[in-house]
Amino acid sequence: MGLVKTPVKGMNDFLPRDMEVRQHVLRVLREVYTSFGYREIETPALEHIENLTGKMGGENEKLIFQVMRRGASLARALEKGESLADSGLRYDLTLPLSRFFAQHSADLPAPFKAMQMAPVWRADQPQKGRFRQFMQCDIDILGDASNLAEIDLLCATSRALSRVFEKTNLSAFTVHLNDRRILRAMALSAGFAEDALETVFISLDKLDKIGKEGVAYDLVAQGFDKSAVDRYLAFFEGDRSSAVTFCRDLGTALEEGCAENLDAIRTCATALCGKGMRFVFDPTLVRGMGYYTGPIFEITLDGYNFSVAGGGRYDTMIGRFTGQSVPACGFSIGFERILTVLAEQGEKDAIPPAGGIAFLLDPKLDFAQKQRVFQTAAARRDRGARVTVLPLKKNARFQIDRLLEDGYADVLRVYPDTEL
Amino acid sequence: MGLVKTPVKGMNDFLPRDMEVRQHVLRVLREVYTSFGYREIETPALEHIENLTGKMGGENEKLIFQVMRRGASLARALEKGESLADSGLRYDLTLPLSRFFAQHSADLPAPFKAMQMAPVWRADQPQKGRFRQFMQCDIDILGDASNLAEIDLLCATSRALSRVFEKTNLSAFTVHLNDRRILRAMALSAGFAEDALETVFISLDKLDKIGKEGVAYDLVAQGFDKSAVDRYLAFFEGDRSSAVTFCRDLGTALEEGCAENLDAIRTCATALCGKGMRFVFDPTLVRGMGYYTGPIFEITLDGYNFSVAGGGRYDTMIGRFTGQSVPACGFSIGFERILTVLAEQGEKDAIPPAGGIAFLLDPKLDFAQKQRVFQTAAARRDRGARVTVLPLKKNARFQIDRLLEDGYADVLRVYPDTEL
Repeated sequence: MGLVKTPVKGMNDFLPRDMEVRQHVLRVLREVYTSFGYREIETPALEHIENLTGKMGGENEKLIFQVMRRGASLARALEKGESLADSGLRYDLTLPLSRFFAQHSADLPAPFKAMQMAPVWRADQPQKGRFRQFMQCDIDILGDASNLAEIDLLCATSRALSRVFEKTNLSAFTVHLNDRRILRAMALSAGFAEDALETVFISLDKLDKIGKEGVAYDLVAQGFDKSAVDRYLAFFEGDRSSAVTFCRDLGTALEEGCAENLDAIRTCATALCGKGMRFVFDPTLVRGMGYYTGPIFEITLDGYNFSVAGGGRYDTMIGRFTGQSVPACGFSIGFERILTVLAEQGEKDAIPPAGGIAFLLDPKLDFAQKQRVFQTAAARRDRGARVTVLPLKKNARFQIDRLLEDGYADVLRVYPDTEL
Repeated sequence: MGLVKTPVKGMNDFLPRDMEVRQHVLRVLREVYTSFGYREIETPALEHIENLTGKMGGENEKLIFQVMRRGASLARALEKGESLADSGLRYDLTLPLSRFFAQHSADLPAPFKAMQMAPVWRADQPQKGRFRQFMQCDIDILGDASNLAEIDLLCATSRALSRVFEKTNLSAFTVHLNDRRILRAMALSAGFAEDALETVFISLDKLDKIGKEGVAYDLVAQGFDKSAVDRYLAFFEGDRSSAVTFCRDLGTALEEGCAENLDAIRTCATALCGKGMRFVFDPTLVRGMGYYTGPIFEITLDGYNFSVAGGGRYDTMIGRFTGQSVPACGFSIGFERILTVLAEQGEKDAIPPAGGIAFLLDPKLDFAQKQRVFQTAAARRDRGARVTVLPLKKNARFQIDRLLEDGYADVLRVYPDTEL
């Protein structure tokens, strides 16, 4: 078989200039989240297949890259009836975090404020800004049932986004807030059955793309009762100035205090991180993951039609591992989307060049002369400079231009008679 | 299927304190390598299966985690005769770098000094200090056929290791140098056939474990001629004070200039990075990978029986992708082994605690009071402090002790009557 030069479909190679921007953004995020008391953890890229297919990942479970059991083969699978895959690449960082917490909670503080910056994999159809391997930057608070958790996550994420975008013209974000329980109460009140809810939410999630009529058509086409659909969509005409106002007709279908809690989070977050961040109650916000149980949030960048961060409360996931429920809430920044926006904004140019000096050695230098260059280089590095030592190429002009382009402030050609 | 709390076999979860040490070491390595002019790149975790099984990875090709083709199933494989896997997790960073360079060379400087810090996966039998997912920290110089490349790599790696270990009592390293061509010339001169060489090297590689008699027994047991084995092992009695002396009886079996080149690298590296680094010619050094073509190196930490870094020249690998040969040379630091040694040395305690303040909020605080705490926290963060805001737990003593243990300098309980 011949070798293949391109990366695997839907995945990316990152060149030095790409990596400088990526590392810069990661540094900013780590710095902000650390200043809020979040502490970094890491889990392996692979998870047990049982965990990945445990019905917590919603649609993402269809997109898992499965890893073959060691020694698995067609012959063996046929003979022994063994499954082919026993692990898979994680599709998000929330499920691995829940497993991690279930395994290590005795060694962790309570509540535990976790930070993760790591790649995840989804075998999605590749398209602009959507890749099969992409970074996620997550913060989570495990063990806090109060809305201090939501407020802290919203403040930290707002601060992180503001810092990342501070040198660009983009500074207007909209934070959409909703609660899974409000979504449920609306659908149940309209007359949909409990086991139809996920299907209804999948249609609702397309609202911004296909409009209200599209959603109605979609639901009726799937066999839902027209009058239930109409009742359901009528809810969305309500007054959105606050969750409490919006939900007043839901009555006992909605858990007590749920709308008030969401309004409190919104008021507090607005007061704390108002600059550039507009917090709105958005009853149409769904969030794909099946594991959310309470408040959910998503941040959009004004002028772009995609979200740059999303999260919510998932109070039952850790209990799936331990049998004991642990309140949990998290927020994830869509790292690749941020990078896409920064690239369009020319942020690459905002990172100052590294500077430094390049010594280009003529091949005719003798041993002692080469050694002297290396010694000079070492001394300059000790004083904090970036110094590279390279052989002088025949096309020196081209080589020098490229080094200057790569940020070197000086390029020095060293010949046998050059004094250092 | 029930959920599983443990990580996948042979892989690790890293807790916050582990991550602090890991991130600290990564920062030091990035800083040193950047000061030498290496620039970071990144490739996807997955590679095409054709590339991974192209006979460049030696024994590691048996250890590949194979990833199933999308939509692959037993039924489909039987019906269509499709292979089950079309990609796999990379077993090292050298093969992906070669593919990367083949794909992007037009956009890269020549020579290109690359740095990579990323995980690799091998389905090895797990044992102490050997994991199925582990970090590698590689530097490579692509496009430089001269020994400036080897000298630069040796200097940079020496400097990086010295910096990482500077606060420990460990500072004595031995750098073993050899050349694949010397290994080959010895085996061919002794009478082994070209196609037996890899087998012979696998036996030789066990020399430090089973001794010379063990190697002899091993080779004879595999059917090799006793007299060839004796002639071969007799070579290793030679004078190792320099490669030139050692190789003088190899005559034309050895490429001209090869031993001289190795001695020049050793002399120069000794002069440049002598402090704590002992450079020795070691004709028994093999290095497992099949792709090396010239000088090879390995660094051992005195007092430990494993290597902490290794590398060498691989001038033909990129040509496998492009048809055009490109000289290449690289050095890889065994990150996990370094972490194991640092942990034994108590290096964790050498990293200063992050400090900062924790506010613990009594549940009775009203909305305005909570908001005031968050505002105070934000103001302190703006002045550079780490500040966490958490709900006060019933067992306050335990909560406070844990926060102090985690490095917070102050913990303040906030009640309704607390003045901030």
